[in-house]
Amino acid sequence: MGLLGASITSAILRSFSGVKSVGFSHRDSTRQKARQLGVADQIVDSIPDCVSDADIVILATPICTFENLFREMAPHLQPGTIITDVGSTKNLAHKWAKKYLPGSVHYVGSHPIAGSEQRGVEFARDDLLAGAVCIVTKTATTDPSAFAATKKLWADLGCSVKSMSPVEHDRIFAEVSHVPHITAAALVNATSPKNINYAGTGFVDTSRIASGPENVWADILLTNSANCAAGIGRVINQLEKLKAAIAAKDEKMIAKLLAQARAKRAKLIEHKMKSRELL
Amino acid sequence: MGLLGASITSAILRSFSGVKSVGFSHRDSTRQKARQLGVADQIVDSIPDCVSDADIVILATPICTFENLFREMAPHLQPGTIITDVGSTKNLAHKWAKKYLPGSVHYVGSHPIAGSEQRGVEFARDDLLAGAVCIVTKTATTDPSAFAATKKLWADLGCSVKSMSPVEHDRIFAEVSHVPHITAAALVNATSPKNINYAGTGFVDTSRIASGPENVWADILLTNSANCAAGIGRVINQLEKLKAAIAAKDEKMIAKLLAQARAKRAKLIEHKMKSRELL
Repeated sequence: MGLLGASITSAILRSFSGVKSVGFSHRDSTRQKARQLGVADQIVDSIPDCVSDADIVILATPICTFENLFREMAPHLQPGTIITDVGSTKNLAHKWAKKYLPGSVHYVGSHPIAGSEQRGVEFARDDLLAGAVCIVTKTATTDPSAFAATKKLWADLGCSVKSMSPVEHDRIFAEVSHVPHITAAALVNATSPKNINYAGTGFVDTSRIASGPENVWADILLTNSANCAAGIGRVINQLEKLKAAIAAKDEKMIAKLLAQARAKRAKLIEHKMKSRELL
Repeated sequence: MGLLGASITSAILRSFSGVKSVGFSHRDSTRQKARQLGVADQIVDSIPDCVSDADIVILATPICTFENLFREMAPHLQPGTIITDVGSTKNLAHKWAKKYLPGSVHYVGSHPIAGSEQRGVEFARDDLLAGAVCIVTKTATTDPSAFAATKKLWADLGCSVKSMSPVEHDRIFAEVSHVPHITAAALVNATSPKNINYAGTGFVDTSRIASGPENVWADILLTNSANCAAGIGRVINQLEKLKAAIAAKDEKMIAKLLAQARAKRAKLIEHKMKSRELL
């Protein structure tokens, strides 16, 4: 029942009739707020109460908590229940699901790319998912009808759904999301407090994502550590290339590397415009 | 008579009476456009015609051209003329001025932090400098009254003027402008074309400045190579720190490094808001 969990139950309330949404939070104060705000049909006080009658269970907690949550809910799940989540990395979730959930239930991974810099149930919005991309992940052992049902759920809530394996997901999002976050943080940390106030809008934009909450990001980086470490290595290689060209005053090589980045980004922006992902 | 040069002469036309602005470009087509647009009182066809009656000469060309331009204009300058420029790095400009300009004229460095992603005289605006920060640079041998006159010129054109040495300028702007540009380019170059379209707004913002023109940036990086190489080294060090913490799954260290970046950036944004440099 954080921002994303409560936004999902709110969207379910708005989008479906004949569906009962049941929310749980381990914090009493969050459960009280969720009840006052009416973001779900019912807010319950325990995991067994939340999951024992569920057709689909959606985890919207830090990925590091999934291991214990799977263990805790396992004995209370009905056969055939679909379990999914909204975590930003997918490999470990699939592994833990296989290890801790009973064979009679079906785990499918989900990553709706939606959020806000605000946090907490009080910022939940029933339109947070509208137009968002949602990646749904499966392995060779994922139940096909559970996979189809999970994709339909997100599509019905307004998402543009794409599917891939958890391995592919974590490799791609290390590159386009996790490593950029790390790079922005490294850039800020490399800037001396004495000089930083001379920064203009270029620096402000380049470093924007470094303002994300560190506990959420530590969770993401910890659960995708190998891909992130490899991706940081690739950024360091590119920085070393530019450093060598600059130190050698090799104008052609500097211009070539900068032109390569400019052309690649121009293609990205063109794609985003065409697919209407940017206004 | 590019975007910045023509914007300066346009601002002079608007701001002063009794001042004659004379423009020059080595391109005939640019001179014709500048005449048609009326961005200066007069557009002349040669450097001697441009500088021989000037009280103040402003170079608005790539920094790498200053060496030859100083040499070419030197025999035609009247004693007491102030020479300045609008280059994004200042060390080499001061060095070349000392080497090639006669002792009877006064060089002062300027760096108005204003520009546009557009280029060319046709995009000149007489309000481009309004509210911009302009750094004016001097060394131990800079003439005090020429320095004061140069600061007054930019202030009269609407800039918020700050002064420092060229050495300090190039060190600071390597950190807050040149190295961020290099980092953004390295990040884009490290991303595979196959995956880049999964990038969201975070990546788009982090990489924005990598879309700058490579010839302008190659000029900046070449003329501030030592500071840039050192600054890239500091970013690599910070990336190595984060890489080690992530590879070791050291949650406390990851969170500590991310929190440090977040706090530093929060202070920067607070400063920008207070000084009204961000809306």
